[in-house]
Amino acid sequence: MDSAKTKFFLPLLYLAWSDDLLTHQEFSVLQSFINAQKWLSDSEKSELLSNINTTSPPSRNTLFRWKSEIDNTIVPEHQSVFDLSSAFYKIPELKPEFTKLENDLGILGEEIFAVFKSNNSTFTAQQNTVKRFEIHKLTAILDGEQAEIINKVKSVITRPEFTYETSTDTSTYREKVYDWCKILAKVNLGNMAYPKKYGGGENIADYFAIMETLSYHDLSLVIKFGVQFGLWGMSIYSLGTEKHYKKYLKDIGSLELPGCFAMTETHHGSNVKGLETTAVYNHSDQTFTINTPSPNAQKEYIGNAALHGQMATVFAKLVIEGKDYGVNAFIVPLRNAKNKTLKGVTIRDCGLKMGLNGVDNGTIRFDNVSIPKENMLDRFASINNRGEFESPIPSDNRRFFTMLSTLVGGRIGIPRSALAAAKSGLAIAIRYGDQRRQFGPEGGSEVPILNYRIHQRRLIPLLAKTYALHFGLQYLTQRYINKNDNEMQEIEALAAGMKSYTTWHTRDTLQECREACGGKGYLSENRIDALKNDTEIYTTFEGDNTVLMQLVAKSRLSEFRKQFGKMDALGMINYVFENAKVAISEKNPISKRKTDETHLLSPEFHLEAFIYREKTTLASASQRLKKLIDSGLDAYDAFNVAQHQMIDVAQAYLERIVLEQFTAAIQKIKNKPIQEALTQLYQLYALSQIEKNKGWFLEENYMEAEKTKAIRKLVNQLCWEIRPNSVPLVDAFAIPESCLAAPIAVK
Amino acid sequence: MDSAKTKFFLPLLYLAWSDDLLTHQEFSVLQSFINAQKWLSDSEKSELLSNINTTSPPSRNTLFRWKSEIDNTIVPEHQSVFDLSSAFYKIPELKPEFTKLENDLGILGEEIFAVFKSNNSTFTAQQNTVKRFEIHKLTAILDGEQAEIINKVKSVITRPEFTYETSTDTSTYREKVYDWCKILAKVNLGNMAYPKKYGGGENIADYFAIMETLSYHDLSLVIKFGVQFGLWGMSIYSLGTEKHYKKYLKDIGSLELPGCFAMTETHHGSNVKGLETTAVYNHSDQTFTINTPSPNAQKEYIGNAALHGQMATVFAKLVIEGKDYGVNAFIVPLRNAKNKTLKGVTIRDCGLKMGLNGVDNGTIRFDNVSIPKENMLDRFASINNRGEFESPIPSDNRRFFTMLSTLVGGRIGIPRSALAAAKSGLAIAIRYGDQRRQFGPEGGSEVPILNYRIHQRRLIPLLAKTYALHFGLQYLTQRYINKNDNEMQEIEALAAGMKSYTTWHTRDTLQECREACGGKGYLSENRIDALKNDTEIYTTFEGDNTVLMQLVAKSRLSEFRKQFGKMDALGMINYVFENAKVAISEKNPISKRKTDETHLLSPEFHLEAFIYREKTTLASASQRLKKLIDSGLDAYDAFNVAQHQMIDVAQAYLERIVLEQFTAAIQKIKNKPIQEALTQLYQLYALSQIEKNKGWFLEENYMEAEKTKAIRKLVNQLCWEIRPNSVPLVDAFAIPESCLAAPIAVK
Repeated sequence: MDSAKTKFFLPLLYLAWSDDLLTHQEFSVLQSFINAQKWLSDSEKSELLSNINTTSPPSRNTLFRWKSEIDNTIVPEHQSVFDLSSAFYKIPELKPEFTKLENDLGILGEEIFAVFKSNNSTFTAQQNTVKRFEIHKLTAILDGEQAEIINKVKSVITRPEFTYETSTDTSTYREKVYDWCKILAKVNLGNMAYPKKYGGGENIADYFAIMETLSYHDLSLVIKFGVQFGLWGMSIYSLGTEKHYKKYLKDIGSLELPGCFAMTETHHGSNVKGLETTAVYNHSDQTFTINTPSPNAQKEYIGNAALHGQMATVFAKLVIEGKDYGVNAFIVPLRNAKNKTLKGVTIRDCGLKMGLNGVDNGTIRFDNVSIPKENMLDRFASINNRGEFESPIPSDNRRFFTMLSTLVGGRIGIPRSALAAAKSGLAIAIRYGDQRRQFGPEGGSEVPILNYRIHQRRLIPLLAKTYALHFGLQYLTQRYINKNDNEMQEIEALAAGMKSYTTWHTRDTLQECREACGGKGYLSENRIDALKNDTEIYTTFEGDNTVLMQLVAKSRLSEFRKQFGKMDALGMINYVFENAKVAISEKNPISKRKTDETHLLSPEFHLEAFIYREKTTLASASQRLKKLIDSGLDAYDAFNVAQHQMIDVAQAYLERIVLEQFTAAIQKIKNKPIQEALTQLYQLYALSQIEKNKGWFLEENYMEAEKTKAIRKLVNQLCWEIRPNSVPLVDAFAIPESCLAAPIAVK
Repeated sequence: MDSAKTKFFLPLLYLAWSDDLLTHQEFSVLQSFINAQKWLSDSEKSELLSNINTTSPPSRNTLFRWKSEIDNTIVPEHQSVFDLSSAFYKIPELKPEFTKLENDLGILGEEIFAVFKSNNSTFTAQQNTVKRFEIHKLTAILDGEQAEIINKVKSVITRPEFTYETSTDTSTYREKVYDWCKILAKVNLGNMAYPKKYGGGENIADYFAIMETLSYHDLSLVIKFGVQFGLWGMSIYSLGTEKHYKKYLKDIGSLELPGCFAMTETHHGSNVKGLETTAVYNHSDQTFTINTPSPNAQKEYIGNAALHGQMATVFAKLVIEGKDYGVNAFIVPLRNAKNKTLKGVTIRDCGLKMGLNGVDNGTIRFDNVSIPKENMLDRFASINNRGEFESPIPSDNRRFFTMLSTLVGGRIGIPRSALAAAKSGLAIAIRYGDQRRQFGPEGGSEVPILNYRIHQRRLIPLLAKTYALHFGLQYLTQRYINKNDNEMQEIEALAAGMKSYTTWHTRDTLQECREACGGKGYLSENRIDALKNDTEIYTTFEGDNTVLMQLVAKSRLSEFRKQFGKMDALGMINYVFENAKVAISEKNPISKRKTDETHLLSPEFHLEAFIYREKTTLASASQRLKKLIDSGLDAYDAFNVAQHQMIDVAQAYLERIVLEQFTAAIQKIKNKPIQEALTQLYQLYALSQIEKNKGWFLEENYMEAEKTKAIRKLVNQLCWEIRPNSVPLVDAFAIPESCLAAPIAVK
C-alpha cells in the first residue's frame, strides 16, 4: 500500500477492520466498489482486495501502521472520511459515489469519523463541580428555627457508640437499637413533645426535627424511637386524661416504661374501623376483659412487642351489656418488670422483615385479659359510675375518627423521616456520580458519570423534588402546629397526602440511587441497601398510600361539592379558572404553543398550569361520579370505577401545594446565589411535574406538542445547568459523614 | 322528636352527627335553615335546634334510635335524602330549598345517601375467581419442548433438602447454596450446555430452562449455579480450545473444579474495554505474569471468589515486549485443592449485599502471579512458537467484542431468571389479593382487594406484560440457538435489550407486588423480600441496563443508516410507513379519533402504532444527531445530548418485538379458552404500552385525545375482565408450592 491511489483507501480499510463496524456481507460491497474503479490499475485493485479478504485479515501490526499513517495525515479541518482520503490522493469527482458507499456501509457521519480524532475538549468532558454558594448558609435556611435541636441530635448520633451495627444477627441488632434509644432518652430527646409538667420539652416542632435528623442514622432507630415516644407515648397523651399522664408520661419519656401501639390486626390494617378485638366492660368488678376473638383479629406488626414492650395501647371494640360502642383505646399490660409475658397474653415475633430488623415487631393475642376500668383512655369516651357509656361525640364512627385525628402527627413524622432517607441516598449517589468515571470521548480520558445527560436525568429532578418536598413538609408541620378546630379536616387530608406523596418519592429516589451507583450501590457498606429496605414499608404503614390518596381525593371532592354542588358546564369553567390571574389567556391558541424560555420558566405559567390541573381533575372526577351514580350505579361501585381518577385528584392537589410552598420559601431568601440555586431547582421541579403529566395536558388541549417538547428540552437543559451545583446542593443537607458512612461517598 | 314534621329532619340530623360529615360552621347553616322554616311551630323549631347544639350532642343511644327509625322507613325506591325525609312528612314545595341546603352542607348525592342503605349486591362485591380454561394445558404451552427438563428440575428443587435456609448468618447460607449446587451437579443439571464428549448434555435450550426453573427457588442458588456452570464453564468452552475442554470441562460440570469469571474491575464495569489488569508474556519461560497495577484495577464482585473458587477466567490486557495487544482471557489458579489461597493472590470478601447473600462475591488482586502459556484461552488469539502474537481478528477492539459476543448467553439466562422471579411475585400478590378482604359497600361484607380497580390496575397489566415477555424471551432463545454469523450483531443487540427490558419489568413488578401485599409483603416469610432484593442487581450485572439500552439504540441507528443514510423529509415519511399496510389511513383525522372497541382491540391497530413509534423515534434520533453534529458539536457530545431519545429508540424497538412474538404465539394455540384468555392479556399489554406512551403519540399527532382517553378506559375495562381469570393465569406458571412458600399465597 505504497501508492497514493491505494492510500486513498486507507481510512476505509481501517474502518472496515477496526471494531465491529462491517459485516461479512458489507465486505463484498466494498470489494465490488473497488473492482468498479476505473482509475485504479489492476495491480492496485488486487493489492486493495487482498487487504479486504475476510479469510485472511491484515495483521494487527498492519492495522497499527495504517492508523499511524492516518494520524500523521489528518488535520482538524477534515470533516469526513472523503476529506481524509483526499488528503492521500485527490479525486474530487468520486465524491458522490464514495458518499453512497459510506451510506451503504453505514459509516457515514461524524460519529464514525470520530474514530480518527482524539478529543479532550468536549463539553461533556468539561463539566465538573463548581461551588456557587456558601453551603452552610443554605443549611441554615433548611434547618430554620430547629437548627439548635438538629445540631444537638447530630452531636449525639455521631458519638462513637452510634457506630452502625454490622452484625446480621437480629437479636444483636435489636439490642443495639434499644441501647441507642436509651441514650436518646437520657439526653431528653424522647420526651420532647410531652408537657413540661411531666418532664417533657413541650416542643412539637423540635420533636419532628429530632425524628428527621435521627433518620440520617439508622432507620430502625427512628422507628423504635417513634413507636416508643410517638405512638405509645402520644396515644396516652392524646387519648388519655390527666390521671394517665401523671401515671405514665414521665416513665415513657425516660424509657423506663417501654410500650406499644396495638391498633392493626391481621385482617384489619387500612380499614381500622373494622377491628375485632373486644373490650367487654364488667360493671360488677369495674374491669374490662380484652379478648382476641379469632386468629385474624390478633394484633400484628406491633413495634416493641416482640421483646421490650411492657404495656400497650390496645384498640378494641368496647362492649357494654352486649352492646357494641365502637373502637376505643385501653392500656393493657403485656410483661412484668422482669420482662415475663403476663397471663392471657401471647406474643409472637413477626420474624425477619425486608428491613427495620432492629425493631422487634410482634403479634399479640389476648385471651380474656382483665384490666381495671381506669385503663380506658377516656378523653373522648368514658364509663360513668353507673356503668353507662358517656361521650361528647355520639357517633361511634365520628368518635373513632376524632381519636385517630389526634394521632395525625405520625403522618408528619414519617414523611419527614422518609425525606431524610432520600437526602442520604442522593448525597451518596450524586457524590459518587461526581467522582466515578466511565467511558469518554474517543482518545480522551474517562469522564464523571454525572456528566452523562441520562445520569443527570435520573438524579437531578429527584434532587429538585426533594428540595421542593423539604419546604412542603415544613409547611405541613407549621400548619399542624398552629392548627385550629376548623382546619383539622384539611390538615388531616394534607398530612395523609404528603405522607403518600413523600414516601413514594423516597421509594423512587432510592431506587434510582441504587441503580445509579451500579454494583457499588448493591454493597451494604454503601448503605443504599438499608435506606431502601428500611423505608420500603413507609408506603404502607401509618396508612397504605393508595388508600390514603383515595381519602385525600374524597376530602377534596367533599370540599368541592360544598362550593359547587350543582355545577353546570359554565360553572365548571368558572371554577377551573377562578383564581388564575391571566386565566383566559392561558388556554388560547398562542399560549398553548408558547415556547420561549421566559414564559416556560415563569412561576406564573407553572402555578396556572398546576392549578388548572388540580381543578380540572377535581371537577371532572366529581362530574364522572355523578354521571355514574345517575346512571344507576351504586355509589360504592362508582367510586371503584373512578379510583384511578381519584389518585390524579390527590396528586394534582399535592403538587400544587408543594409548588406554592417552594416558591414561597425561595421568596423569603435574601442570599442571592442561594436564591438562584434554589430557583433553578424550583424550575426543574415545576417543569418535570408538567413533563410527567404531559399526556394529560395534551389530552386537555392545555398545551400543544411544541410546548411539551420545549419543556422536555428545558428539563434536560436545567439538569445540565444544575449538575455543577449538585454536589454542593447535597452537601447543604449537612448529613454527618459518620452517618452517611458509604465509602463511595464520604469525604 | 315525635311529630311527623320534626321527623322530616331525622335523616338530616343523623347525617349531621354520624361520621365526620359536618364542620362546626356547617351546623350553624343548618340552624339558620331550621329557623327560617315557616311551616314549623316554635316548639318544633326549638326541639330540632336542641338536637343540633354542638355543645350538647345527642347521646349515642339517641343516634341509634334515629337510625332504626330510618331503617324502618327507608325503601329501595328512595334516591335522595329528600325522598327519605318525605316518607316522614310530605312537603314537596321545600325541595329546591332543601336541595340547596344539601348542597351547602356538601351532603348531596348518592354517595352520602348510601349511609342509609345496606347493599350486598354491588358489582364490586360480586367479582371473584372463575376458572375459564384448563390450567395444566396452559402450563404445557408455556413450557413447550422444555417441559421434561422443567419437570425434572422441579422434582429436584422440591425435595426436602431444598427447604429454604432461614438463618441470617451468611456463612451458613453460602454453604447451603453450595450444597444445593452440588446436588444439581450430581443429577447432571450443571453441565447441560457442554458437549457430550466432555460429559455434558449438549442442550443449550435445556440449560436456559434449568436457569429459569431454578429461579422459582432461591435466587442465590441460580446465580451461584450460573457463575459456575455458565460464566466459568462457558468462558472455557467459548474462549478456549480443545486442550482446555479436555482438561477442565468435566470437572467444572461435576463441580469438582469450582471457578470464577473475573472480568469486572472496581473502576471498569460497563466500560470493560478499559480493563487495567495486565498479562505480560515472558517468552524465556513461556509464562504470563498476571498483575493488578492499582487498587481500582482489582477484580470486583466476582462470584465464587470469596470462598469456593479454585480457578478463574481472568480478563487482562496482554502485553508482549512492552506492546499492548488488548484484552484477552487467561485461566489463573486462585486456591489449591485444600482451599488455601495461592501465593500472589489476595482475595477479599465483598461483604454483605442487598441480596444474593448466598453467593460469595469477592475482590481479587494479583501480585505478579505466574501462569503457564497454555493457560491463555486461545480461540481468538494466541502466541506462536516464536513468541509472536497471532489472531484472525486484527483489531484488538473487534477481537475483544467477538470474545464478548460468545458470552451473550448470559444475557438470555438472566432475563429468563428475572421473569421467573416476577412470576413468583405475581403469583403471591394475585393469590393474596383474591383472598384478602378489606372495606366493602355500606352494610355489606368486606370484598377481596383484587376487586378494587386500582389494585387491578397495579397488578394485572404487569401480569399481561409478564406473559408477553415470556414469549419474547422464548423467541430470543430460539434466535440465539439457531443463529448464523450474519445475525450475530442483531441477536446481541436483541439480547442486550431484552435483558434490560425484562429486568426493569421485574423490578417494577416486585415493587408493586410488595406494596400490593401491604405489611404482609414486608415479612420475609412471604418471600417478596428475597425476590426483590436478589433481583435488584439484575438491572446492573451482565451489563448496566442504561448502558445496554444505549448500545441497542446505537445498533438500531447503524442499521438505519445503512438503509437510509441520506434521508430527506420524504424519504423519512416513506421509511416510517413502509411496512404498515393501511399506513396512510392511520395518520388521518378519522383514524386518529377512532374510538370503537373493534378498532382499539385489533392487532392491526396495535402493530401499526408500535411500528410507527419504533420507526419515528429511530428516524428522529438519527436526524437529531446529524443536526447536532452538523452544527459543529463533537459526536461524543451529540450522543450525550440525545441519550434520552436513545432510550426511547431501544424501548420502542423492544416493545414492537415483544408485541409481535406475543401475537405469533397466540396464533399457534388451538385451545379456544386459552387462546381467549391470552388474547385478553395481549390486548392489555398492547394498550397499556400505548397508554404509557400516550404523551408521545399525542405529541406526534398520531392519536387525538378522544382516542387516548378511550384507550385508558379500555385498559381499565380489560383489567376488570381479566380479574376473574387472574388466579388461574398465575397458577399456570406452575410454580411448585414449596418454592412459592409464602404463607399468604400457598394453597
